[in-house]
Amino acid sequence: MCDNKAGISDSWEEIVDRKLSADNAKIENYFQLDEDVISRAKSRKKITGKCIEDILEDLAGREAVVITSLDANHLVKLMAEGQLTATEVVTAFCARAAIAHQLSGLLLEIGFDAALARAKELDEYYQKHGTTVGPLHGLPVTLKDQFHIRDLETTMGYVGWIGTFEGSKHTGKEKNVESQLVQELWKLGAVPIGKAPETNNNILGYTLNPHNQLLSTGGSSGGEAAMQALRGSAFGIGTDIGGSVSMPAALQSIYSLKPSSGRISFKDAADQGRGQTAIPTVAGIMGPSVATLRLVFQSLLSTKPWLSDPYTLPIPWTGTSKNEISNPVFALMPHDGIVSPHPPISRALKIVEAALRNIGINCLPWNPPKPSMPVSELHGKIVRGNACPEPFKAIQLSNEPVVPEMEGLYPDRTLREPISVDTHESLVAQMKDFRNRYNDYWMSSARHTGTSRPVDAVIAPVTPYAGFQPGEFKHGAEYTTFLNLLDLPNVVIPVAFASKNIDEVPTGYKPLSEQDAENMKLYDPEVCHGAPAAIQIFGRRLDEERLLLLAEIVDSAVRNYEKTLEMQAPEPQMHKL
Amino acid sequence: MCDNKAGISDSWEEIVDRKLSADNAKIENYFQLDEDVISRAKSRKKITGKCIEDILEDLAGREAVVITSLDANHLVKLMAEGQLTATEVVTAFCARAAIAHQLSGLLLEIGFDAALARAKELDEYYQKHGTTVGPLHGLPVTLKDQFHIRDLETTMGYVGWIGTFEGSKHTGKEKNVESQLVQELWKLGAVPIGKAPETNNNILGYTLNPHNQLLSTGGSSGGEAAMQALRGSAFGIGTDIGGSVSMPAALQSIYSLKPSSGRISFKDAADQGRGQTAIPTVAGIMGPSVATLRLVFQSLLSTKPWLSDPYTLPIPWTGTSKNEISNPVFALMPHDGIVSPHPPISRALKIVEAALRNIGINCLPWNPPKPSMPVSELHGKIVRGNACPEPFKAIQLSNEPVVPEMEGLYPDRTLREPISVDTHESLVAQMKDFRNRYNDYWMSSARHTGTSRPVDAVIAPVTPYAGFQPGEFKHGAEYTTFLNLLDLPNVVIPVAFASKNIDEVPTGYKPLSEQDAENMKLYDPEVCHGAPAAIQIFGRRLDEERLLLLAEIVDSAVRNYEKTLEMQAPEPQMHKL
Repeated sequence: MCDNKAGISDSWEEIVDRKLSADNAKIENYFQLDEDVISRAKSRKKITGKCIEDILEDLAGREAVVITSLDANHLVKLMAEGQLTATEVVTAFCARAAIAHQLSGLLLEIGFDAALARAKELDEYYQKHGTTVGPLHGLPVTLKDQFHIRDLETTMGYVGWIGTFEGSKHTGKEKNVESQLVQELWKLGAVPIGKAPETNNNILGYTLNPHNQLLSTGGSSGGEAAMQALRGSAFGIGTDIGGSVSMPAALQSIYSLKPSSGRISFKDAADQGRGQTAIPTVAGIMGPSVATLRLVFQSLLSTKPWLSDPYTLPIPWTGTSKNEISNPVFALMPHDGIVSPHPPISRALKIVEAALRNIGINCLPWNPPKPSMPVSELHGKIVRGNACPEPFKAIQLSNEPVVPEMEGLYPDRTLREPISVDTHESLVAQMKDFRNRYNDYWMSSARHTGTSRPVDAVIAPVTPYAGFQPGEFKHGAEYTTFLNLLDLPNVVIPVAFASKNIDEVPTGYKPLSEQDAENMKLYDPEVCHGAPAAIQIFGRRLDEERLLLLAEIVDSAVRNYEKTLEMQAPEPQMHKL
Repeated sequence: MCDNKAGISDSWEEIVDRKLSADNAKIENYFQLDEDVISRAKSRKKITGKCIEDILEDLAGREAVVITSLDANHLVKLMAEGQLTATEVVTAFCARAAIAHQLSGLLLEIGFDAALARAKELDEYYQKHGTTVGPLHGLPVTLKDQFHIRDLETTMGYVGWIGTFEGSKHTGKEKNVESQLVQELWKLGAVPIGKAPETNNNILGYTLNPHNQLLSTGGSSGGEAAMQALRGSAFGIGTDIGGSVSMPAALQSIYSLKPSSGRISFKDAADQGRGQTAIPTVAGIMGPSVATLRLVFQSLLSTKPWLSDPYTLPIPWTGTSKNEISNPVFALMPHDGIVSPHPPISRALKIVEAALRNIGINCLPWNPPKPSMPVSELHGKIVRGNACPEPFKAIQLSNEPVVPEMEGLYPDRTLREPISVDTHESLVAQMKDFRNRYNDYWMSSARHTGTSRPVDAVIAPVTPYAGFQPGEFKHGAEYTTFLNLLDLPNVVIPVAFASKNIDEVPTGYKPLSEQDAENMKLYDPEVCHGAPAAIQIFGRRLDEERLLLLAEIVDSAVRNYEKTLEMQAPEPQMHKL
């Protein structure tokens, strides 16, 4: 509860209503949809693609549809050539983001005014100098509402943070702090247009998957992933401590890069694990192509973020070229030995395998070592060993309900005792041992590659699910949390869409474990129909440059293979951008 | 207590006696000194330089004295040219190390046999191929007894670790594990000859300063620093979590590099804070010149340690050249605002300032921000928040006495309660905040340098002491622990030696604080006479290459300035290699 002007406490619902009204007022200035358009879209299973594009065309014209369908590199090129203005680009994306928000509740904060003002500046700069301001000139970007943007509020979805700076009032920092990453984005020419919510929060509610609104976006950067799926910005920034970028990216059929920690600045973001150094939160990039991820990643590094952020590593973009990766060797891990992926994901993996075979690359098997306890257990004990007092404090501020996803953390709405630092360090030592053994295994693969190099990258599921219904995420995190334990970077690549016609639990399926049997029961071909099925490719620590190149090889193999399949089958099941 | 073959428990003293007898038997094969030579040396204040060289000349000839006086780069050059063999070099250093050990108790483990066998191999390789094995070809190295070398034992000075692997018996790992750093050293051609003790331990006792045996070597890599001061190896490896490389280096008048964490591998070393990620232990290099430090550091990086060690960063030697550092700008921090350095250290700083002025460089002032509590308090709470159970376990194994340096950790020989991980994280958050503010301050210095770059490096005391007597280290760690909090690299440069004739507490001295007044009382010009007075230069995080170049500029300015002073004063007080 918070005191209003008259000194009477407002309920959390009243506070939320006020914030939403303020947000809606901002939308009114731009692209307000009719109630019936919204409710028609809400009743649909799928609102991506044609659905949102038709609405956009009605409101903002065909050009807006074309602009918002272009890749970041293409957009920058057109602006650099003077064929598009930043104002045209930013306006088109703001319109599309406004629609996405009205259909799906994807903006906790709206920054269209400042974005359009900046676009005007960029255009003036271009007019005057004939060049762009930077490599991200005029690209609209949305960020998970964990980054501070001056003049916008940061709530992370906590009602109690509304009107505060990270929960505190009268600090002078309210709307007055800008995360280093955001500063870099502005400087590079990018144009922040708004901030996306955590998947479930009491301000905007539960974020549903725009490819299939029966399903969840996955968490926690689900809002940002949905925004990307609806193409409300040219690229997005999420955060990841256990798969929070990768999973929603996979579930939304977009591309993502979760780097190793220390490459993208997380300075002056709202970090609720500020003292956590064993497994730090990292910022990740989301977008419609590997090329977008690379453009953004390379551009961010060009600002030398390590000079201003002592927790960012002084590793410049290495400029690895395609020539350096001749005869890439991939390994494929079809499951983790504990929980099998659902049929659409297994099919996606087979597509990737076949696509690579098609270009003469056979994937090696991958049977890496395991930590001393299940991956998610070790990860959870390390990351939540402090009993998570910061989110609890944030929730208590307004007395808002605890969302179901967090109920396990705070049984009976109480804070558990944190573990001792000695116990925590023994867990971290187990993680360290896991890292060493995993790395030894990886290095030992050089014996089997025939290139004298170890395996270049590994292909694996991102979660067992091609979509899950809210509350049905049971054993999904093992495929991403191990990467946080190991601090390895990954790229998510969309491959296919679930089809009730072909994706069935195979006859003779033998569960890998009890968990697996239980988890496979959650697969409902009817419900999941049309949900994205993606894979991930992960590489060596802090070697994102090489990983991005390898991801491009895989991605283009898949896209080419799709074309072959499409020619064979009139009804395509493959992913198409 | 440990069971002997008859099943009767041996006292810790008996276990130590057996280990020392075994060590002495190894010495017998090489260079055993007469009892009276040893006792004569022990009664001297200073055993470095002429004292040990005379003994060496008697035992091994003049050539051994000449060889062991050469710098690492010079030695490798002579071996590469065929003017010296590895066997000659290793033999000479083994002889000198054997003498150093007999005079000062500096080898917990002796590896002369394997070292000479390896030297023979190196010579055979050279004979056959006409080239050296690697950049450290034939260089004898000693390491703090925290690194595992196959066929040697690791005790870290714990009696209970004798005959075990890190305190455990029958693991199959006893004498069978080799730290990655040691593997790299062998591969590069270096020849480990033995392992040096922690400053105070119940096996070899208290390690005294060979420049002035009334004084301590400082800790914890004091044994290794004393070995370097006595030139028992061409370079040494120590470990540092709060100044344990820098302080003994300074007190022993040698050079050292403590890098930021993540550049030199610490994998498979005996790490008693294995789960500690906020401030990890780092390996540091000790030697007789900056050129030696650079040779070793660059060579280690050439092995790409990050491929085998997931906690080492993939940052290759950057190859920063001298040309890149034109017009270097230094800042000078004469004290930390809490405790003033003793007069010899203040004089050393003035010498450095004058030496730089001599080459046209004026030092800027340096008034950096402070953390939320005294540096050493914050550091101690973070590093020892776990109540240090591992050293306690090690001590309990044999029931050996707790050395006075550790008594504070285990009052009444009991283990305290560790703090909670939540409390620990809030301390780490304070450290993080300190890092950010310190870095902001550093960046802001660009406004005053006139080069548009921020200050390149900062010159400061390493400890307030030019030597202290065992047990009298009171407020000394603030000048090094802040670098561990900030993860900044430093290089220690010897400058002068304390002189009772000139180093007096200045008239009109005003204490900075109560601690300062108390600490200044510890200065005894008579006792400290002849003790080394060094300074440190510290640079940006993970920018060791640049720091080494800057250190060379400072070092050569000081050496040249010394020559000028020597010409003026017949009785030199300066440091001379």
